[in-house]
Amino acid sequence: MNFPKYHGIIPPMVTPLRDRDALDVAGLERLIEHILAGGVHGLFILGTTGEGPSLSYRLRKELIERTCRQVNRRVPVLVGITDTAFQESLNVARWSADAGANALVVAPPYYLPEGQPELQEYLDHLVPELPLPLFLYNMPALTKVAMEPETVRRAMDEPRIIGLKDSSCSMIYLHRILALLPHRPDWPVLVGPEEMLADSVLAGAHGGVNGGANLFPKLYVKLFETARAGDLARVRELHALVMRVSEGLYRIGRHSSAIIKGIKGALALSGVCDDFMAEPFQRFRDPERARVRQILDELNPILNDL
Amino acid sequence: MNFPKYHGIIPPMVTPLRDRDALDVAGLERLIEHILAGGVHGLFILGTTGEGPSLSYRLRKELIERTCRQVNRRVPVLVGITDTAFQESLNVARWSADAGANALVVAPPYYLPEGQPELQEYLDHLVPELPLPLFLYNMPALTKVAMEPETVRRAMDEPRIIGLKDSSCSMIYLHRILALLPHRPDWPVLVGPEEMLADSVLAGAHGGVNGGANLFPKLYVKLFETARAGDLARVRELHALVMRVSEGLYRIGRHSSAIIKGIKGALALSGVCDDFMAEPFQRFRDPERARVRQILDELNPILNDL
Amino acid sequence: MNFPKYHGIIPPMVTPLRDRDALDVAGLERLIEHILAGGVHGLFILGTTGEGPSLSYRLRKELIERTCRQVNRRVPVLVGITDTAFQESLNVARWSADAGANALVVAPPYYLPEGQPELQEYLDHLVPELPLPLFLYNMPALTKVAMEPETVRRAMDEPRIIGLKDSSCSMIYLHRILALLPHRPDWPVLVGPEEMLADSVLAGAHGGVNGGANLFPKLYVKLFETARAGDLARVRELHALVMRVSEGLYRIGRHSSAIIKGIKGALALSGVCDDFMAEPFQRFRDPERARVRQILDELNPILNDL
Amino acid sequence: MNFPKYHGIIPPMVTPLRDRDALDVAGLERLIEHILAGGVHGLFILGTTGEGPSLSYRLRKELIERTCRQVNRRVPVLVGITDTAFQESLNVARWSADAGANALVVAPPYYLPEGQPELQEYLDHLVPELPLPLFLYNMPALTKVAMEPETVRRAMDEPRIIGLKDSSCSMIYLHRILALLPHRPDWPVLVGPEEMLADSVLAGAHGGVNGGANLFPKLYVKLFETARAGDLARVRELHALVMRVSEGLYRIGRHSSAIIKGIKGALALSGVCDDFMAEPFQRFRDPERARVRQILDELNPILNDL
Repeated sequence: MNFPKYHGIIPPMVTPLRDRDALDVAGLERLIEHILAGGVHGLFILGTTGEGPSLSYRLRKELIERTCRQVNRRVPVLVGITDTAFQESLNVARWSADAGANALVVAPPYYLPEGQPELQEYLDHLVPELPLPLFLYNMPALTKVAMEPETVRRAMDEPRIIGLKDSSCSMIYLHRILALLPHRPDWPVLVGPEEMLADSVLAGAHGGVNGGANLFPKLYVKLFETARAGDLARVRELHALVMRVSEGLYRIGRHSSAIIKGIKGALALSGVCDDFMAEPFQRFRDPERARVRQILDELNPILNDL
Repeated sequence: MNFPKYHGIIPPMVTPLRDRDALDVAGLERLIEHILAGGVHGLFILGTTGEGPSLSYRLRKELIERTCRQVNRRVPVLVGITDTAFQESLNVARWSADAGANALVVAPPYYLPEGQPELQEYLDHLVPELPLPLFLYNMPALTKVAMEPETVRRAMDEPRIIGLKDSSCSMIYLHRILALLPHRPDWPVLVGPEEMLADSVLAGAHGGVNGGANLFPKLYVKLFETARAGDLARVRELHALVMRVSEGLYRIGRHSSAIIKGIKGALALSGVCDDFMAEPFQRFRDPERARVRQILDELNPILNDL
Repeated sequence: MNFPKYHGIIPPMVTPLRDRDALDVAGLERLIEHILAGGVHGLFILGTTGEGPSLSYRLRKELIERTCRQVNRRVPVLVGITDTAFQESLNVARWSADAGANALVVAPPYYLPEGQPELQEYLDHLVPELPLPLFLYNMPALTKVAMEPETVRRAMDEPRIIGLKDSSCSMIYLHRILALLPHRPDWPVLVGPEEMLADSVLAGAHGGVNGGANLFPKLYVKLFETARAGDLARVRELHALVMRVSEGLYRIGRHSSAIIKGIKGALALSGVCDDFMAEPFQRFRDPERARVRQILDELNPILNDL
Repeated sequence: MNFPKYHGIIPPMVTPLRDRDALDVAGLERLIEHILAGGVHGLFILGTTGEGPSLSYRLRKELIERTCRQVNRRVPVLVGITDTAFQESLNVARWSADAGANALVVAPPYYLPEGQPELQEYLDHLVPELPLPLFLYNMPALTKVAMEPETVRRAMDEPRIIGLKDSSCSMIYLHRILALLPHRPDWPVLVGPEEMLADSVLAGAHGGVNGGANLFPKLYVKLFETARAGDLARVRELHALVMRVSEGLYRIGRHSSAIIKGIKGALALSGVCDDFMAEPFQRFRDPERARVRQILDELNPILNDL
């Protein structure tokens, strides 16, 4: 199977912060090196896990520039431009092109929900204004609006739209999209939730944009490669580890911010970067942090042996 | 009944645009004069009806400045600062204070949904940074998160939070909030959906932030005053007209953008301002516009006689 | 204003049980007398509050017969026939006619959700089979499907459909329905949630099917009459008491069964009937029961003075 | 891998009807033979696809008896007892035992939604009353309530609960359940949506309860066996055919009844049984039926060659 150019593990990088509007610059550099050392195939910044919508535009610009400089073309950098304001999406897109990023990623504008014809027209207007190729990002739980299969099918006819990241958590949706690939065989389909990485790659998807790869990039890269190779027994072993990360680290808090707090908390305890959270969220307090440490203590010996 | 300072009809002004990132300046001035001529008690800009989240920050700043200048303290100006990014809310807040606005309005950050404790902590952090007093804005259908009664109750203890705009469309929620008013008798509760204006004021609320008041400000002001005075027979007559506006103009399109498109379309046909819609939406095409004209032709003779 | 035949307070009676499949017969008789002594205008059995769907058909039949016998035509008896199985609805309808009930009430079949055309066709098929006139019951939170205004409008053309009970909790929906009444002026619209009783009657609705009238029938009857008479000051006083009942008794448990558990618990503590709950629910345990007693101790002195 | 006793393809049989309350007896016999000829591992009646909740109890009893007699122990028969009324579930359970069925299947009572502790207590009360072992059925889209992993974990400690059918359409949920299997290694997990059959079996699930197996039982049996054997290339080929069935036959109508209408319509056109639908649904009209025929004409040559 020939894989398209963008494939494999492209972690949705968390944004290391040391204060409300200040990057943790040293932490950012360490985090990028930590992730790249795991053999990932790209880096996605300013997504949901990256708290993109919570960051000031000034900080987004700084993050783009510093990330591109640090990555220095070792892997492709994808930048999220999802926004409720068209013009601000364009601004972020231009900063990304200027900084040397490789591609952009857009989910539907997420305040007032669009109908599919409105969403299609929006894409028709957006794409010609963009200086870089574009991934679609399906994230209905947060944007309220899905990229329905007919909208994706239509987007496949636009050469500057070059793939899809699906975070719908729906395997049925994913299969419906994969069934469209004969129309655009070079189109990568990447899956968001890491609990579905193995299933998706076995089913024909091309990789994952998985939050846990901030922490344990090697695990996700190995799982991707093993699934791509069709080694089912090994896939199940590695997938079981991904489930332990997910069940352990992502369910500590009660709210939807728990996943990001868990990843940032584990990165902080691992000495990689600060766990400061952008408003309206706050880093874990001591009891939750103790739980994170306990899970890391269980997982680290296993994952270091991979 | 003594009413608090902010009360009555405070229309959520649509934002007249002539292009994707350009105000319809002459239209804006006409629209403000049209609304103020109706006897309204304030003006709310950059809300949902104002397509606030869809506008570039540059344009938001220009809108705040031009609106404050044009209103020139004839009525209070309230500015929406709802944002997913804390720092951008602060920026808009500061521009508003500099331009002479009177108060700010904030709904929960609307990308990743917060739990109530997270929302409360967010408000604790936000309020001290703001240069103007703040209204809460309950809009769960679009922000995913409600300002639960316990969160509102807690906010009543903060003197710089000065009222609530409720767009939940839930009369039960409204009653639960009104039942809290003994804790803060000077606190205005204003209702968003105009179909509930009469009920709400009869029940003890203090006014409405009603989209239709962009078009027919006098109707809403009269309905408010009549309800405040308890003239039930006249309330029902005027309310029936509001229902005709709502049933006629707000249900032409199928999508949630239909209300704004309907108001802007009617304003354009009335010669007040352009009906250009900010992305990701588009103004009505001809068939829908013909329907708007037909409804205006039915309503104008009645409403001009008010 | 001439009111249609069915109007006023028609309590959705709880079903007194002494065991999983056994009526509390003495409790049922006391409950009916307690409610009728409050001056109510009808009685609705086998609704949501009556745990209708949770009862065996044998028990439903017994309840219908005993209730009709005990009421003995002092007020109209309405019987819920909502069911996922058409034939079982017909069975309950026939038992109701045989027992001397006056009307039937049906919400959409609630397993697989219908589209509106399917729902309309269902009503077309159901009505000719029924031996008694029919109320529609709009309860989208539990049936998943609303009786959309166009479906209600269509039903108004069917003489054997004689009114609507609306438990949507949406004042906007209620106004949309009231705006249709010129097509069928004799059609009563009754509101379910008691927190909206005052608003609804002031707006032109004809009464309420309010759970709290199991406990304090006089309060709801007085509020209805006061609202009908347009005495706004007194409406607000009585409505404030309804809100105290609702905030006090209906929010003790965390689950949606809390309202029924609260009403049954208060009836049991008042010596009216058993608080046994049909499966899958269980009566309150001691801590919740203590809370119910405390609220009754606060409310009883006030409500006995009405 | 040793598979538990219940595994493989256990089709959720549609219920052939010739009128509102009348079985298509000859069609039922043909349908059972058609399905069993495909090599399935069991038969599940009175589920969602079987329109269980829409059938009168009289008809349910007849269906159970006729099905058990016709199957005659060639494969296990599972009977759905999901009901809002506890006593009616018991009745169906007893008829099933008397008729010689092998196991029962229960989803949460689906009118008023339960909290998890309520659901757990319900199961505690239900199981001792049942004359046959029980499968749990997770179907949150229709019952409003999920069998949360902690509830499933707890059920694993009850020997008379012998497995789970999951129709959540969530691969993440399925993985969370599979991760619990070390607590009860003999517990089959069967997946409802056929679009997820391949993924689920590859991931460690034990089979599928797939609607399409009414029509093309051999396809689903082969896909199950191929996935169990880990033959990925062949899995993808067969899965692509399942997606063609799903995209073709299940999306003809707009409503949630479309899947059942599509299956019944195709069975009728194939001469197997009547396509009469239980109320509140109606069989496809001519335009939809023509579409079904067209899809059958495309699929039959391929599927007959399997």
